[in-house]
Amino acid sequence: MALTIGVLAERVTGERRVALVPEVAKRFRALGVELVVQRGAADAASIAEGDFADVRWADGVDEVLAADLVLAIQPPSDELIGKLKPGVVLVAGLQPYQSADRARLFAERKITTFAMELLPRISRAQSMDILSSQAACSGYQCVLIAASHCTKFFPMLTYAAGTIRPAKVLVIGAGVAGLQAIATARRMGAMVEAYDVRPETKEQIESLGAKFVDTGVSAAGTGGYARELTDDEKRQQAERLGKAVAQCDALITTAAIPGKKAPQIISADMVAKMKTGAVVVDMAAESGGNVAGTVAGEAVRVGPALIVGPTNLPSRMAAHSSEMFSKNLYNFVSPMIKDGSLAIDWTDEVIAGTCLTHDGAVRHEGVKKILGL
Amino acid sequence: MALTIGVLAERVTGERRVALVPEVAKRFRALGVELVVQRGAADAASIAEGDFADVRWADGVDEVLAADLVLAIQPPSDELIGKLKPGVVLVAGLQPYQSADRARLFAERKITTFAMELLPRISRAQSMDILSSQAACSGYQCVLIAASHCTKFFPMLTYAAGTIRPAKVLVIGAGVAGLQAIATARRMGAMVEAYDVRPETKEQIESLGAKFVDTGVSAAGTGGYARELTDDEKRQQAERLGKAVAQCDALITTAAIPGKKAPQIISADMVAKMKTGAVVVDMAAESGGNVAGTVAGEAVRVGPALIVGPTNLPSRMAAHSSEMFSKNLYNFVSPMIKDGSLAIDWTDEVIAGTCLTHDGAVRHEGVKKILGL
Repeated sequence: MALTIGVLAERVTGERRVALVPEVAKRFRALGVELVVQRGAADAASIAEGDFADVRWADGVDEVLAADLVLAIQPPSDELIGKLKPGVVLVAGLQPYQSADRARLFAERKITTFAMELLPRISRAQSMDILSSQAACSGYQCVLIAASHCTKFFPMLTYAAGTIRPAKVLVIGAGVAGLQAIATARRMGAMVEAYDVRPETKEQIESLGAKFVDTGVSAAGTGGYARELTDDEKRQQAERLGKAVAQCDALITTAAIPGKKAPQIISADMVAKMKTGAVVVDMAAESGGNVAGTVAGEAVRVGPALIVGPTNLPSRMAAHSSEMFSKNLYNFVSPMIKDGSLAIDWTDEVIAGTCLTHDGAVRHEGVKKILGL
Repeated sequence: MALTIGVLAERVTGERRVALVPEVAKRFRALGVELVVQRGAADAASIAEGDFADVRWADGVDEVLAADLVLAIQPPSDELIGKLKPGVVLVAGLQPYQSADRARLFAERKITTFAMELLPRISRAQSMDILSSQAACSGYQCVLIAASHCTKFFPMLTYAAGTIRPAKVLVIGAGVAGLQAIATARRMGAMVEAYDVRPETKEQIESLGAKFVDTGVSAAGTGGYARELTDDEKRQQAERLGKAVAQCDALITTAAIPGKKAPQIISADMVAKMKTGAVVVDMAAESGGNVAGTVAGEAVRVGPALIVGPTNLPSRMAAHSSEMFSKNLYNFVSPMIKDGSLAIDWTDEVIAGTCLTHDGAVRHEGVKKILGL
């Protein structure tokens, strides 16, 4: 019997993505896989059911959970986890650092879980990297939010009565999201400055047409993320950054450390010294925020500035973020499928490194350490 | 005694602009003019009072109304009009076609009013044209709204798992707002098609990197605006446009005829045939809408599409829209100031053509005709 892949409809409030898009469905079918998709799963992503050729639509969740391998965007609820059959493979964004209880539940239920956030950050795995693909969406959306709230044009504008100066945008953190934010703001015509604690980003920032803010602090880290700064380094950073913050019309912060609270980079004092009408978009709002005063899910006035703390940014563009997520899942899952059956190669560092639970145990050392398992 | 110019704080809900910005205040002062500004007038535009050098801040409205010349963005309330002294000059966006009662009241009170919307559309007057400057803001904002609601990236994006196709944006109406919308959407990387009933816009549209949708209908009009189409022409336009509408991810409509209800260009049937998840931004929402189903001030789901009917778009970027508006006012008013006093040259076609009421009578023939005065 052919391998069956089930696709869950997302249940978390505000989640609009879907783990399977029509193009990827076609590719899975070409591998001889059966697809069972929960009815309504693609609605919030604005993808018409008619665009999926040759998939089975399940009215309830049970048929989906009975599949051999289940795909999702977010971790299923405990109730759904309880309904998964032992030995099933779950591949999703599982927010592995968020809950020890959920990791234990996966192990107890003998579910083989792959948390895509745990994917080793090596070149071969780039095409499977949901953190990167979704961060690109987030960076783009941050600029749209900043531009929408900005009381100025981003581009320079010449009109009959004179010239309007372009807005100044400052982007903090030059990972995938930050670089996408820089590229988007530049494309829109803003003057862009950017900063990252990793000095090797200078060249990337400048190649996008932005100016690098040099604070003299370096915190090159591992796995593509920055290490945490010492208190002294933080002080020096704050002092040098302060000037750029005080001059910008829009500030976008994108500094996140996986599994940890986001570092606070912009203090209340720095916010207080911003221009009247400045906009701050704090991409790290969900993990504590890079800016003093950020409230996740809200836009708050703090002194001269408006601080926006958006949540689930990729869901704001669910058609494309789903397409990217779904292709990442396909690139991760398809090597496990041999002749229409599941054949997991546990010697593959990408597969082994992404595994959260298998055969009754939590397998990922990093998660065990952070969650005390 | 020097001429005094008063600047009102706007009172209409949602109005965030101010008729005077610091740079223009400086220029008026250089002409020997006294400035009285109502306290709080610049707050909503995110302009700090400290940035205005050498103006007098009035706590109440009375001191402002006692000036020789009063500047505003929107028409004052009847109550305020009642407080203006006979012979005062009021220069503002007066929405002259909107209310016969207000025009009569201005005349009765012997107020000399210049409605900036009436400005003759000749080259010499371009630097005074609030319709153009504010339309540029509106066109830009429409694209931001469309991009924010779009479930796709506007630009093409290449990432590790493949390439994301750019969004298709269709702009209808290639006046100042439409051209700004085209330029902004192109700058953001979208594939842009555009349409206007005036065939001479083809070249302008193409020069911005967009594709002209040729419907075979021509309606070149006067004063830079299109004439109204016949029923037959409307049918032909609808048929040819339908295809472009059905293929786009975002539709922006900008067709307005001053003093008249906006033409409905996009029928309910055309909306019903749009792509799942398509976004429509109807810039003409306030004057009746170009799209069937538009509700001014709301975002409504209609079949596969989301139709957004924004109001007061320039107020969404009040710092720059105020700057542009204020410079337009300065360019109109400053030629009337000789040696620090008011000297209106009624033989100037720009001044005479912009006059709504003077010396107890409604003067503008076009307004009289449309309002039956």
